[in-house]
Amino acid sequence: MAPAIAPADETLYMRIFHRIALMIEQGTLRPGDRVPSVRKLSRQEGVSVSTVLQAYTQLEARGLIEARPQSGFYVRPRLWAPPAEPGMSKPSGKATPVSAGELTLNILKAVRNPGLVALGTAIPSPELLPTQQLNRMMASIGRRDQSAGNSYDVPPGALQLRVQVARRALDYGCLLAPDDIVTATGCQKALNLGLRAVACPGDTIAEESPTYHGILQMIGALGMKALEIPTHPRDGVSLDALEYAMDRERIAACLFTPTFNNPLGCAMPDENRKELVKMLAGRGIPLIEDDIYGDIAFGPQRPRAAKSYDTEGLVLLCDSFSKTLAPGYRVGWCAPGRFQKKVEHLKFTNTIANATLPALAIAEFLATGGYEHHLRRVRRVYAEQVGLMTAAVAASFPDGTKVTRPQGGHVLWIEMPGKVDSLELFHQALAAKVSIAPGPLFSAKQKYRNCVRLNCGTPWTEAVEGAIKTLGMLAKKQMG
Amino acid sequence: MAPAIAPADETLYMRIFHRIALMIEQGTLRPGDRVPSVRKLSRQEGVSVSTVLQAYTQLEARGLIEARPQSGFYVRPRLWAPPAEPGMSKPSGKATPVSAGELTLNILKAVRNPGLVALGTAIPSPELLPTQQLNRMMASIGRRDQSAGNSYDVPPGALQLRVQVARRALDYGCLLAPDDIVTATGCQKALNLGLRAVACPGDTIAEESPTYHGILQMIGALGMKALEIPTHPRDGVSLDALEYAMDRERIAACLFTPTFNNPLGCAMPDENRKELVKMLAGRGIPLIEDDIYGDIAFGPQRPRAAKSYDTEGLVLLCDSFSKTLAPGYRVGWCAPGRFQKKVEHLKFTNTIANATLPALAIAEFLATGGYEHHLRRVRRVYAEQVGLMTAAVAASFPDGTKVTRPQGGHVLWIEMPGKVDSLELFHQALAAKVSIAPGPLFSAKQKYRNCVRLNCGTPWTEAVEGAIKTLGMLAKKQMG
Repeated sequence: MAPAIAPADETLYMRIFHRIALMIEQGTLRPGDRVPSVRKLSRQEGVSVSTVLQAYTQLEARGLIEARPQSGFYVRPRLWAPPAEPGMSKPSGKATPVSAGELTLNILKAVRNPGLVALGTAIPSPELLPTQQLNRMMASIGRRDQSAGNSYDVPPGALQLRVQVARRALDYGCLLAPDDIVTATGCQKALNLGLRAVACPGDTIAEESPTYHGILQMIGALGMKALEIPTHPRDGVSLDALEYAMDRERIAACLFTPTFNNPLGCAMPDENRKELVKMLAGRGIPLIEDDIYGDIAFGPQRPRAAKSYDTEGLVLLCDSFSKTLAPGYRVGWCAPGRFQKKVEHLKFTNTIANATLPALAIAEFLATGGYEHHLRRVRRVYAEQVGLMTAAVAASFPDGTKVTRPQGGHVLWIEMPGKVDSLELFHQALAAKVSIAPGPLFSAKQKYRNCVRLNCGTPWTEAVEGAIKTLGMLAKKQMG
Repeated sequence: MAPAIAPADETLYMRIFHRIALMIEQGTLRPGDRVPSVRKLSRQEGVSVSTVLQAYTQLEARGLIEARPQSGFYVRPRLWAPPAEPGMSKPSGKATPVSAGELTLNILKAVRNPGLVALGTAIPSPELLPTQQLNRMMASIGRRDQSAGNSYDVPPGALQLRVQVARRALDYGCLLAPDDIVTATGCQKALNLGLRAVACPGDTIAEESPTYHGILQMIGALGMKALEIPTHPRDGVSLDALEYAMDRERIAACLFTPTFNNPLGCAMPDENRKELVKMLAGRGIPLIEDDIYGDIAFGPQRPRAAKSYDTEGLVLLCDSFSKTLAPGYRVGWCAPGRFQKKVEHLKFTNTIANATLPALAIAEFLATGGYEHHLRRVRRVYAEQVGLMTAAVAASFPDGTKVTRPQGGHVLWIEMPGKVDSLELFHQALAAKVSIAPGPLFSAKQKYRNCVRLNCGTPWTEAVEGAIKTLGMLAKKQMG
């Protein structure tokens, strides 16, 4: 069997190390359990005995297992408990212009340095992307049908892609026809078109708090105001708080990520989604549903989209394949409900069309490339990496640090003790060649100063492990 | 030598026909001149004697040449004069919201039917695009460097492309560094980012009249008002009228196409560009310069960009390779002057990034693919096709029809007698399987009801010639 993460030679033993560490962290192997024998594991994983021994020595050095003479290795009594979860967020109750545009862009540019351990951007792991297969498909389409690949793909965009999206939408409860879909240059563009279709400059947009900085910056760049709604790190946005807010002021639209909010990784329970759609329909308020992480569910079942409860055409479902297949292809889409024509017109005035070949390649991959099989691997690996990151944070960060329990996606939200300043930490970490996303990026009012978001999208390596230690050390130092 | 237009077998004689017709129209062959002998032309063009004879018979039938016994074929005295040019446009002097969004989109969708003779959209000829070469380059980059092609190409976008753009900008008088450039998903997107960087909803934007409907719809979709400035079909926008308008009301920005306005094909004289930039600098008004047709100059010298006179960073130069290399690749850029940071931020909030591989492929083509050589061919063919279209319109359209003399690009603007209604003509033509772009699309107030824009981007065929005859017939019929 192929390993979950294709390791570089020098990190073969790291893979063994982390596989066992994860089994211990998740409770599959409990204190007192015997871990697999060195010989057995070496056979099973197709690595040398000395590689396994190296991994076990490391596990022993970290106090996770112990050698018992003549008997083998055993799990030691647990040395760490998983850290507590953060509570419901408490944003300010006022709609506010979005600030920090330049800060956000500067941070994004700063973390582009290839010499960094990149924990600051929510990019998927290149090792998990079927880039070679996609590039080959795109090349083959280009050879086969030249005119198709090099003409204006005007709205609503490539039919082949819209057919595949409609087919897949059944999986999360949506009955969409190809003509209910408009293609877009990535999910951000889909959200942007959706937002412009339902709201005007000056309008107030309700959003989760914390939420993805790209969403906040988009609201700001469109001259709209953001109203941050309290959000629970497991159940998502508080419907009570939302209702309270809607009673108090005119909200033009909600822009939520019900399935694996970035940075929280939470998924709204189905009944909450249903209730949310009903509440908004009663008031005629559109919901722009960001589903970019929807396909990366850790559990056996991918949550239904809120859109699946939409009977009024008021939910604009937005998605892309940037986190699962190809961030560089920029292939996304919007199912805008009753705003279909408006979104098509906005897309035309904004870009005329998307790049054609990338959309056709993604469509072909969805039709023939084994997307479901691919997703199973992606989900398993990101769940593992999130688990490893959680364990590493628990081991290195200051006492009192809280960590989310993401149900999907590949980011972790860390709430450090109040004394720690994440903007300061960002600069200190950068000097140590580590990038992080400081908490204030995720709030219109730059709250969450003691929080950071860490990307678990990249393969777990010694460098990443070292980076977490460095961050923990820097945070502890700040506490004096 | 390869023929300028690669003909289908059955249209071999059409190529000969139109080559000679063009030489007569342009005055290379004058009345009384002997046209090349049948035998000589057959040898020279590598076609059979009977093919040439078929072409000459057609030319004779149209009254363009005559046979003199024992001597050969001679050009007959001229039977048509080139039609008159339209005069300076006279738009309404009031800033106005842009209407006709749905009409525009419906017309665009209607003309997407592949069964039509497509004269309604300004698309370049697929035969003139180096699609195979570009697709091969993209495939090769994808194989060579997977990570490069499938990661987020965040603002300002692919350095390779920005380097090539900066290198070429010298040709039209601009000293740009790669860091002065932001890549964008096509020219429309570049214009959109530029416009949003300098103006807000409610603001008034001055534009040429007529101008490209995509520009008008963009102004409308952003909640801005359009102020149409009188424009001359040879010299471009009237500076006197612009100055008069600026004295009367607050103009937030100008969005002009100084080099080959679509639909007029006019190029502002250099001294006007210089004066325009100076006038606007004096008032602190930004100029968004649309240069999408700039590389398709019919004359020996490509005009300088207005940006080349910009000392204040107030000109935002926008361009793409959609008309010369690849409409389906969506590779454009903006040189935003002092608005660089704002444009980068807007691009991030709008799309995060463009598709990566298409941008890298265009960059490689510019670096190694013989772009200049390619342009020479493109310019010659479009000039020919515009000439042929002019002659055909002169032969078929109602008396009193006026036609522009484009200096570049590949569209023709036709002003028919006042009685002809181009929207009606659009529907009648569609029923006859011909698409046109009716005049009202090109005005914020839907003026130019007796005008149409015809695309000369597609190769000249019997079908196109037949379509022009049909249009002429329909227009004459409307006049009763």
